[in-house]
Amino acid sequence: MTGRLSIAGLGPGDAALVTPEVTAALACATDVFGYTPYVARVPVREGLLLHPSDNRMELQRATEALRLAAEGRSVVIVSSGDPGVFAMAAAVFEVLETAPQWQGLDIRVLPGVTAMLAAAARVGAPLGHDFCAINLSDNLKPWPVIEKRLRLAAEADFSIAMYNPRSASRLEGFARALEVLKDAGCGERTIIFAHAVTTPKERIEMVALQEAQPEMADMATLVIVGNSATRRVGRFVYAPRRAS
Amino acid sequence: MTGRLSIAGLGPGDAALVTPEVTAALACATDVFGYTPYVARVPVREGLLLHPSDNRMELQRATEALRLAAEGRSVVIVSSGDPGVFAMAAAVFEVLETAPQWQGLDIRVLPGVTAMLAAAARVGAPLGHDFCAINLSDNLKPWPVIEKRLRLAAEADFSIAMYNPRSASRLEGFARALEVLKDAGCGERTIIFAHAVTTPKERIEMVALQEAQPEMADMATLVIVGNSATRRVGRFVYAPRRAS
Repeated sequence: MTGRLSIAGLGPGDAALVTPEVTAALACATDVFGYTPYVARVPVREGLLLHPSDNRMELQRATEALRLAAEGRSVVIVSSGDPGVFAMAAAVFEVLETAPQWQGLDIRVLPGVTAMLAAAARVGAPLGHDFCAINLSDNLKPWPVIEKRLRLAAEADFSIAMYNPRSASRLEGFARALEVLKDAGCGERTIIFAHAVTTPKERIEMVALQEAQPEMADMATLVIVGNSATRRVGRFVYAPRRAS
Repeated sequence: MTGRLSIAGLGPGDAALVTPEVTAALACATDVFGYTPYVARVPVREGLLLHPSDNRMELQRATEALRLAAEGRSVVIVSSGDPGVFAMAAAVFEVLETAPQWQGLDIRVLPGVTAMLAAAARVGAPLGHDFCAINLSDNLKPWPVIEKRLRLAAEADFSIAMYNPRSASRLEGFARALEVLKDAGCGERTIIFAHAVTTPKERIEMVALQEAQPEMADMATLVIVGNSATRRVGRFVYAPRRAS
């Protein structure tokens, strides 16, 4: 088999944040799979087949991509940000676990700039000390697990990056997450809402957590809660390198 | 003032992982500051002044870079990986807090591919579910804070990325970190040692945590401990998207 599958991260949106490694993989691909808005970011050219699909189609998309790679094609699955952070890489390995016939394929993960790093860079250095990243979607895990992790993250005094905070079908969770963090004593911490970061629609808000409203987040928002030592300096916010 | 300061991430080592944004900033810089081995990765050209300095000189380096930017020069401070993750961005804002005369300068943070994302990509998707990042250096925080965070991270069932695990002057800490994680019930979890990832000296080892030896890590090693659900598939390791 001469086919190949790359699972590539397109970064947060700005073309200047796509790595040369990913650009090169796309330049020699025969097929590109991904969630429709991410595939729309891939430069079109003759001979390149695009296979856009809906959200929540991750396993079907991974299966089809592996099947084409096994036929000898050069396949790229694109994710926004980094493919290994709440994105397509885990879905591919889930499929691979059930499909030993594909485990010998040339499969590579091509890292990218994940949303929390781009959001942090825009506002200063809120992830400059120990931190964690939590996916707030409860599509694949029970809500109590998310609450437990938020409480422990607050107790550990991590800065907290929250992915997928709120969608049309999950309006309640993020409001509860804010309550959990207030109960855990984080009300005075800085919370950052970074919407569509590095794109023309970018919009960033920073407030004290106790002033935050659930409606400040949507699915295109990356939320960062500072640790107890995080502070503002002029227009910037950062976590000091010393222990909080 | 027409000067500018960019704090830029060079990625983990491979030139194909340097973003076009960072390449462009370096191409129009007059001065580049950074830890000597990172400055050595910047392409030399006529008119570009290099200012390499030693480790632990972060605040002096930030001060000098800000001073030159205030004089009207185009200054770049380079970090390995991402500048906002245990790197130079926080040091710059620390200096800025004490120097209001520089707070109006054009200061930007340019994100990069941080080591944990590159290491994760090399082995599969071990950060595909909720995770945390902890700096194991106790130069700037007391060791008990590190131990507490490791215990809480284990209780939260985060995958755990550990930066700066071990240096010549800190030989004991990483051995204690392994003991803390064993005590916390993580002995059977997969631990990944990614040394000099994406460079010609790259070396990756994966074992069960209870089999790990402290000598498997040095300062050029990024360590990832999987969560309780992390598993191997052929040559890959990944964290399933469902709750562990």
